Amino acid sequence: LLGVGTVGAAVARRLLAGGEPLARRVGRPLLLRHVLVRDPARRRSFQIPSSILRTDVGVILNDDETSIVVELIGGVDDARRLTFDAVRAGKDVVTANKALLAVHGREIFAAARSAGRCVTFEGAVAGGIPLIEAIRRGLAANRIDAVYGILNGTCNYILTRMIDNGASYAHALGEAQRLGYAEADPTTDVSGLDAAHKLAILASLAMGRCCDLDRIAVKGISDIDLIDLTAAAELGLVCKLLAIARRHGGDISLAVEPRFIPRSHPLAAVSGPFNAVSVYGDLIGHCLFYGPGAGGDATASAVLADILDVASGNAAKTFAAEGVLWDQTPAATYAPAGEDASPHYIRVGLVDRPGGIAQIATILGNAGISIASIIQHESPYQQASDPVPVVVTTHPARQRDVRAAVTRFGELKEVLGAPVCIPVLEKLGPGGGK
Amino acid sequence: LLGVGTVGAAVARRLLAGGEPLARRVGRPLLLRHVLVRDPARRRSFQIPSSILRTDVGVILNDDETSIVVELIGGVDDARRLTFDAVRAGKDVVTANKALLAVHGREIFAAARSAGRCVTFEGAVAGGIPLIEAIRRGLAANRIDAVYGILNGTCNYILTRMIDNGASYAHALGEAQRLGYAEADPTTDVSGLDAAHKLAILASLAMGRCCDLDRIAVKGISDIDLIDLTAAAELGLVCKLLAIARRHGGDISLAVEPRFIPRSHPLAAVSGPFNAVSVYGDLIGHCLFYGPGAGGDATASAVLADILDVASGNAAKTFAAEGVLWDQTPAATYAPAGEDASPHYIRVGLVDRPGGIAQIATILGNAGISIASIIQHESPYQQASDPVPVVVTTHPARQRDVRAAVTRFGELKEVLGAPVCIPVLEKLGPGGGK
Repeated sequence: LLGVGTVGAAVARRLLAGGEPLARRVGRPLLLRHVLVRDPARRRSFQIPSSILRTDVGVILNDDETSIVVELIGGVDDARRLTFDAVRAGKDVVTANKALLAVHGREIFAAARSAGRCVTFEGAVAGGIPLIEAIRRGLAANRIDAVYGILNGTCNYILTRMIDNGASYAHALGEAQRLGYAEADPTTDVSGLDAAHKLAILASLAMGRCCDLDRIAVKGISDIDLIDLTAAAELGLVCKLLAIARRHGGDISLAVEPRFIPRSHPLAAVSGPFNAVSVYGDLIGHCLFYGPGAGGDATASAVLADILDVASGNAAKTFAAEGVLWDQTPAATYAPAGEDASPHYIRVGLVDRPGGIAQIATILGNAGISIASIIQHESPYQQASDPVPVVVTTHPARQRDVRAAVTRFGELKEVLGAPVCIPVLEKLGPGGGK
Repeated sequence: LLGVGTVGAAVARRLLAGGEPLARRVGRPLLLRHVLVRDPARRRSFQIPSSILRTDVGVILNDDETSIVVELIGGVDDARRLTFDAVRAGKDVVTANKALLAVHGREIFAAARSAGRCVTFEGAVAGGIPLIEAIRRGLAANRIDAVYGILNGTCNYILTRMIDNGASYAHALGEAQRLGYAEADPTTDVSGLDAAHKLAILASLAMGRCCDLDRIAVKGISDIDLIDLTAAAELGLVCKLLAIARRHGGDISLAVEPRFIPRSHPLAAVSGPFNAVSVYGDLIGHCLFYGPGAGGDATASAVLADILDVASGNAAKTFAAEGVLWDQTPAATYAPAGEDASPHYIRVGLVDRPGGIAQIATILGNAGISIASIIQHESPYQQASDPVPVVVTTHPARQRDVRAAVTRFGELKEVLGAPVCIPVLEKLGPGGGK
């Protein structure tokens, strides 16, 4: 076991205290022989026997009795080096490191394969939810057309608190930090990058194409304004940061972005730090997986499942045979951005003067975008000089057409401030009318 | 392949037309060599080459080139005999037959084990949702404390239509029959028996104890009255037929019954013919699996996943090693019925005369049951002689205490008709304050 942070400590605790039911599953004992730490003297919430604490990874990699290395140190560079060293030393590797696999997955899988070892990573996406397994095995007979969901618990917690408590983004973020749901530097989470790492893994697996992290259009939640969450709530819409991968014929589109979703969609009920992922397969249709997306014990549940799968020999067979990991699949080709049609939520601030709404309606009409509703949101605290927020929802329209129209709103003298434009999720099958 | 009903036809279609991506998953071709039918001349929506149609199962079982038998004939007696014959003939068996495994699972698994074969059954519970796999593998490191959910799409469709459209039970059932969601004789579904079959399988697996179908307290939906669905909607509650297995220390409780659940619970959003199952594990906490619970293609997705799992050799390893199937686990012991505490929804019809509500409140108070709300539901169409429906919700109270109190309501001269009493689901960990 390399690293004993929150997840590592939970894995060690179960292996040391509750190993017997685990051993029974695979018909052989599971022994935790080595735990790599930086500082053996450091006090930990969970006390690991000093006899198995190591500071030199060489001791671990040279031990022929050790067959599985569990990489939980996080980060990319050290983890990459240790993973390479482990497979070359003849160990199978279990990891929960999404950044590592999103960036270096292809070379890591190839190195493991040429060493005759396997790498498993159930804990890298959606915490404890057995989603990777579902896509690789339970849904293996399907052509998967879309996979999308809530992959970052920090963002979902913040958005949930804003919606439920009318909190500002800054306030909700502060609360998430106090509760341990957000880190002191929340950038990786709120920028959408963490969700993008997970999407790169998930999409590569689901689509059978190696998806490039850099080809994901990433937008975070830090610009989300409470006014839009409130206005959308009146329309029966809830805001979620969604990671979306979709098949368009032979091409794939990838995005991480805030979306409104109808309250009746199963993803709308996913609140707080939970994760959930919808999968559309050509046989199964729509299915969804929900659970804790982070946390020591929940992620340990996934890591331990991988350990059992490796110990039983099943992981090696799957790794060798299935041919869906991205060292064995072609690079993805990408659909042009913005081709998808969705309903949209648009908010513009209008000067309180006749004709503004007509101008907006004209621009949308000329672009062939059909309006579903217009609501003028006057506030009792409105000053005469304040812009009047006007919320427009559209019928399904091509995203790039809507964005182009909204850009034109910004040029109107009746419009104050930057318009807001957020697509609304409908249930997704294969993309773009193909 | 034994049987080409809806599911069998979908399995055959994919094996015959799209076998190459499947073969790639396991590194060997998958050939559909025999299809057992009653009448080879019958016209089918999906045409199977006559060269592989068989009417004599002996031809199939004696073919050494056939290694997997897929049992999709349904029913219990013939399916049992064919399954026994298949494992004794050295075939692995894939089945989606929940009644078969709920009733004869123990002897079937034992027979397969002594023949050195395996039996898989992903399609037997929750249609296409890869739930069996999740419990056996993805959540294998957890002690599972509760598993409950919506396991019968017919009942869920009927309840959804009653709630959303204000339809009566009889009307919604008729509609379900017209759409093919309910059979001409809907008894197995609406009585809760179908959900009980699935619960026996799911609970045996999740709890690691052989659970007896006869020990499930089963109540169906045919008594559900629209008035209660409407009244509960005002309280933010939705009615679902739930199958519930819960661990109470070393004991287990099993029930299939209508329950109200809060609109905020993820199961509340499961509408129409969909299934969803919540699982509570000691590591993962709460997770949930959602998807189509029936249908040819969706169930074929599960059956084909099993076929791949058997063909890859993984299923045999899991079957041999894990020790959780109920030929290898002890018989369950059962918690006394009604020990669980839940909030309750109660409706009584009162004569329109002072004192009725006081009598009810007194009975509840004397039983130590705390009232959360009382709503008197007067209707504009109420006749003076009609009973006034009064809806009481309680704080969490032991189910048998509440039932005893409600029985006493029936003895009051102020009460007309039989009172209705439906427990409200809260999120479930391990049972009963243990």
